[in-house]
Amino acid sequence: FVSLLSSAIIVYRLPWTWKCSKLLMKFIHAGLNTIAMILAIVSMVAVFEFHNAKNIPNMYSLHSWIGLTAVIFYSLQLLLGFAVFLLPFAPVHLRVVLMPIHVYSGLTIFATVIATALMGITEKLIFSLKNPAYSASPPEATLVNCLGLLLVIFGSLILWMASRPHWKRPPAENAKILRPIAATPEGTEVESTMTNSSNADKSDLRINAEAARKQNIKFDEAGQRSTM
Amino acid sequence: FVSLLSSAIIVYRLPWTWKCSKLLMKFIHAGLNTIAMILAIVSMVAVFEFHNAKNIPNMYSLHSWIGLTAVIFYSLQLLLGFAVFLLPFAPVHLRVVLMPIHVYSGLTIFATVIATALMGITEKLIFSLKNPAYSASPPEATLVNCLGLLLVIFGSLILWMASRPHWKRPPAENAKILRPIAATPEGTEVESTMTNSSNADKSDLRINAEAARKQNIKFDEAGQRSTM
Repeated sequence: FVSLLSSAIIVYRLPWTWKCSKLLMKFIHAGLNTIAMILAIVSMVAVFEFHNAKNIPNMYSLHSWIGLTAVIFYSLQLLLGFAVFLLPFAPVHLRVVLMPIHVYSGLTIFATVIATALMGITEKLIFSLKNPAYSASPPEATLVNCLGLLLVIFGSLILWMASRPHWKRPPAENAKILRPIAATPEGTEVESTMTNSSNADKSDLRINAEAARKQNIKFDEAGQRSTM
Repeated sequence: FVSLLSSAIIVYRLPWTWKCSKLLMKFIHAGLNTIAMILAIVSMVAVFEFHNAKNIPNMYSLHSWIGLTAVIFYSLQLLLGFAVFLLPFAPVHLRVVLMPIHVYSGLTIFATVIATALMGITEKLIFSLKNPAYSASPPEATLVNCLGLLLVIFGSLILWMASRPHWKRPPAENAKILRPIAATPEGTEVESTMTNSSNADKSDLRINAEAARKQNIKFDEAGQRSTM
């Protein structure tokens, strides 16, 4: 689940050498997140079934509270992302406003999921290791502690990759899709999921390139990866 | 401890209306982090004393492993920050390179500390609540679960505030301190902790302002808040 989430997060970062289209990127991002969501629901059902079979109360622990909160926010994130960024109906200014929130929510949910996993590991080690107990540091405890530490290191690396500005889509990609503002002073057309790159190629990119560049910088400041 | 860390993180964000100097900001940031570090060490000593007094083994749990890792990285972060950003000896290009790492490490350590606290709360609830047990959801369990959830919400808010580009120091502050690159083609002088703002006022800011602006953008991209 965590590795799927990670792949979904960094899909915009890594494969620029593969020359995938933006639309394909979006579909991979949405697809991986959808698979992760399904896995999250399946695993939650499994937990409830396990609890019911063993007569363990449900939803009493902090692990379960924070985990359920994360899953609820994750499903909202998925629905909102699908409606705003994948379907072609949302206006550009809405995408610009929502993209920083989408990115922040995604990364915060990711960090919260890792924290939930660490709490779950702690609970499981305390409940399962009885003879010898967790506090006697049997080999299983040491092994699982190492796995937990690796989970933190892995999560930190993903957050590092996701937060590097120079690992973003190159600015040239954005510059291409922004028309000169002299031609469209009120609203700047931005490539949506419906348009393909040939539209951008047709437009005269050299007219008022400086103005477009300024607009581009403004967009970058306001919405970061908002037009992707 | 978490609230001190939070205050230290957001000190650069909030008080622009108070017109504090950059140097004062730095001292508040460093001071709060130093107090937090002292509290972390005192609390760790208290935990070890408590364990020894009650014959509980030390450092067996995932909570302790991740917590100790966080404290070690936090002390490294504090030492490095002091040496590079507070003392006036480090060259500008080193500050530019290290600032994004410093910011990332700070925020990651903050998130890790919250995860550690959540694990500690989970452990404490399991070990302390015996009759009725944690799984029976006594009022204490519900209360502490709520506190844990509030901790996550609080941490998320701090990370939101710390990651908003428009809550950064206004770019005019950076533009002022960057000399035109035509005058100093190799290295651009940047306000250090030693210089005061009158130096910047003396320089002719209008010469080659466009070049300085470009340089400024480059610096912003490369090092984000690096010249602060």
